[in-house]
Amino acid sequence: MAGFTIDTQRMLADLDTLRSIGAVKTGVVRPAYSEADRLARIWLAKRMEEAGLEVSVDAVGNVFGLPPGDEKCILVGSHSDTQPEGGWLDGAYGVIVGLEIARACLEQGGPAVACVSFQDEEGRFSTLTGSRYWAGLMSLEEVDECSDDTGLRVGQARLEREGLPAARDVPPSRFSAFMEIHIEQGPVLDTAGERIGVVENIVGIRTEKMRFLGEQNHAGTTPMHLRRDAFQGLNRFVSTVNERLAGVATAATVWTVGQVDLHPNANSIVPGRVDFTIQWRDADDARLDRMQEIIHAAARETVSALGLEWQRCGCDLIAPTQANAALVEALAKAAERLAPGLWRRMPSGALHDAANVSNVLPMAMLFVPSKGGISHNFLEDTDRADLALGAEALAASIASLG
Amino acid sequence: MAGFTIDTQRMLADLDTLRSIGAVKTGVVRPAYSEADRLARIWLAKRMEEAGLEVSVDAVGNVFGLPPGDEKCILVGSHSDTQPEGGWLDGAYGVIVGLEIARACLEQGGPAVACVSFQDEEGRFSTLTGSRYWAGLMSLEEVDECSDDTGLRVGQARLEREGLPAARDVPPSRFSAFMEIHIEQGPVLDTAGERIGVVENIVGIRTEKMRFLGEQNHAGTTPMHLRRDAFQGLNRFVSTVNERLAGVATAATVWTVGQVDLHPNANSIVPGRVDFTIQWRDADDARLDRMQEIIHAAARETVSALGLEWQRCGCDLIAPTQANAALVEALAKAAERLAPGLWRRMPSGALHDAANVSNVLPMAMLFVPSKGGISHNFLEDTDRADLALGAEALAASIASLG
Repeated sequence: MAGFTIDTQRMLADLDTLRSIGAVKTGVVRPAYSEADRLARIWLAKRMEEAGLEVSVDAVGNVFGLPPGDEKCILVGSHSDTQPEGGWLDGAYGVIVGLEIARACLEQGGPAVACVSFQDEEGRFSTLTGSRYWAGLMSLEEVDECSDDTGLRVGQARLEREGLPAARDVPPSRFSAFMEIHIEQGPVLDTAGERIGVVENIVGIRTEKMRFLGEQNHAGTTPMHLRRDAFQGLNRFVSTVNERLAGVATAATVWTVGQVDLHPNANSIVPGRVDFTIQWRDADDARLDRMQEIIHAAARETVSALGLEWQRCGCDLIAPTQANAALVEALAKAAERLAPGLWRRMPSGALHDAANVSNVLPMAMLFVPSKGGISHNFLEDTDRADLALGAEALAASIASLG
Repeated sequence: MAGFTIDTQRMLADLDTLRSIGAVKTGVVRPAYSEADRLARIWLAKRMEEAGLEVSVDAVGNVFGLPPGDEKCILVGSHSDTQPEGGWLDGAYGVIVGLEIARACLEQGGPAVACVSFQDEEGRFSTLTGSRYWAGLMSLEEVDECSDDTGLRVGQARLEREGLPAARDVPPSRFSAFMEIHIEQGPVLDTAGERIGVVENIVGIRTEKMRFLGEQNHAGTTPMHLRRDAFQGLNRFVSTVNERLAGVATAATVWTVGQVDLHPNANSIVPGRVDFTIQWRDADDARLDRMQEIIHAAARETVSALGLEWQRCGCDLIAPTQANAALVEALAKAAERLAPGLWRRMPSGALHDAANVSNVLPMAMLFVPSKGGISHNFLEDTDRADLALGAEALAASIASLG
């Protein structure tokens, strides 16, 4: 056990500085490849250098701070890009904790630890673009073709590197494991009054775009029994799905109808078409399959009963990932020591860079509470004491592994 | 009984001519106060004059064709403006039938009959604007303030009258009754294989805009039991409303959720807000009241059960109107004589100029079938034999009254 102590005051000061890069009066605006994002990466690289870490910024802009020598080390980090109008902790917290742990280890002769800020976790261009590229799940050519809402392609955006060193890739083989600390972005810890969540897995996500086609009609002259109302189809489908999914769901299973577009969407017209998405998440692939069967059966039964047509317009699948058991145990021990009785094992309902990295390295994650469960919002916040405690737990687990 | 015979060939030829004014390759485009609408009114005025009728075009553009003399007479007509992309019969049919009956009566010494084309029935600027003004339900000042989607006000649009005579209003006191023939715009007659509908009443319409407010949240990190999902609120509300309204509805009662807007409408976000409309129609005001109670109770129960907030954002009420009993009997007798066993008494589920006119004159309406129930669509159509038969039935009833 290679003991070391992190400086939580220095860490929180760094976090405040990072917050100020890209901050507006009410929050943080630092989307991937924006000017503010680049300035944040330049500042990060400088802080890593000041700590004695060797900086490598790869082709897509992932910033690594590497300890001297070439022995395999643990990589700790997250992302420093934000939602278009984001909170101050989503990503930034895990990056600064990585910096502080790598720095403290170097200063105090702890285990060798590297840190990283991945690029475009928030999906301006793709889903978790930087870690996806780094884990070999997407080639540079594929990344370059991704574009944002304005049509800007990564291939063009990533060329603006003024102030950053020339691109140099860092192979995953340089590391022995990846650990990421993040705010929970949900209400579970906050509601329970707990201070740490040890993530056992990251849920799989399936998102289907569907369409029900009926017949657009006059809302005054079309009797109820002659209608083929697409929205009533959606209503029946959602009720059926709710009832049946409740029978297979665990407490952590979720499903959401988040996007609904009626056509023609007028108060005097029976809707002839509804486009909608249904998304479901669970840590167990077999359960995701079972949910899909239920959802498809409900759609088939609905259109058959109401004389509608069902069109599947695309399905996006992200597989569940398991955290490494040994890393989870190290985190659990540290959590129990620093927050006895005030922590839990839990799944991550949100996607994180760690999910991509799990394809090339053992990974584990730690959560700290989000006040009111609020994230992707300027109001996102966590008590500073909890930010410090989470970092200390992660550091303690790394010390125990070192 | 003052017998006369209409010339259905001449009538259908006039209908084809009117169709060609404002027609594009696939349909009819003649919105109120458009160039095509004005040209149609100029042509109508000319055809009225050729028939020996005296033309008056009032301040808002309602075109009247008046028989000589000043004895009170029956007014027959509808509207010649169309939906932005409309069918060829919606309105135009009733205007041309009015013209033909007035013309035939004048030629053959039948009863004195006047004809009319009301302005902006289709609601580019307001709801049935022309007949609303004429029936005294809206002052000219109020009409002038109405504007279309582009911000154009009637006060400006109605000043373009080139080719039309100077404005002269025609008082409702000039007439003894109003009769309107129209396509059904619904599937009832077509489905039943019937040829004429005698309208007993025009349904009342209530349209409420409502909002359910919940809490916008991450669709991965928010457990089902902690969600306040506005769309799930709408789903529960609609299911409750469907079940309870079925218990008070007649075969002619309808209700529609036609407009739904989720916020933020993204597949990974639990919807925090849904704006929607619910509209219900029935010929009985007491039933409309009872339906409103059910709808409000369902909304209250939904938000209470799901922890949402309910906001009412406006309610639009149009009262049901009854056709005049004597006129209905005259129409029913003519229908039974000309289409024995192939007609029915029915409500009008759509709103018509006759509803406004009922405030100042006894009114009645006749329907002819709409193929497939299709209207407000370039595909709108009715067999020419049915167009002729409907006109003959209306003429026969007027002859019987005359």
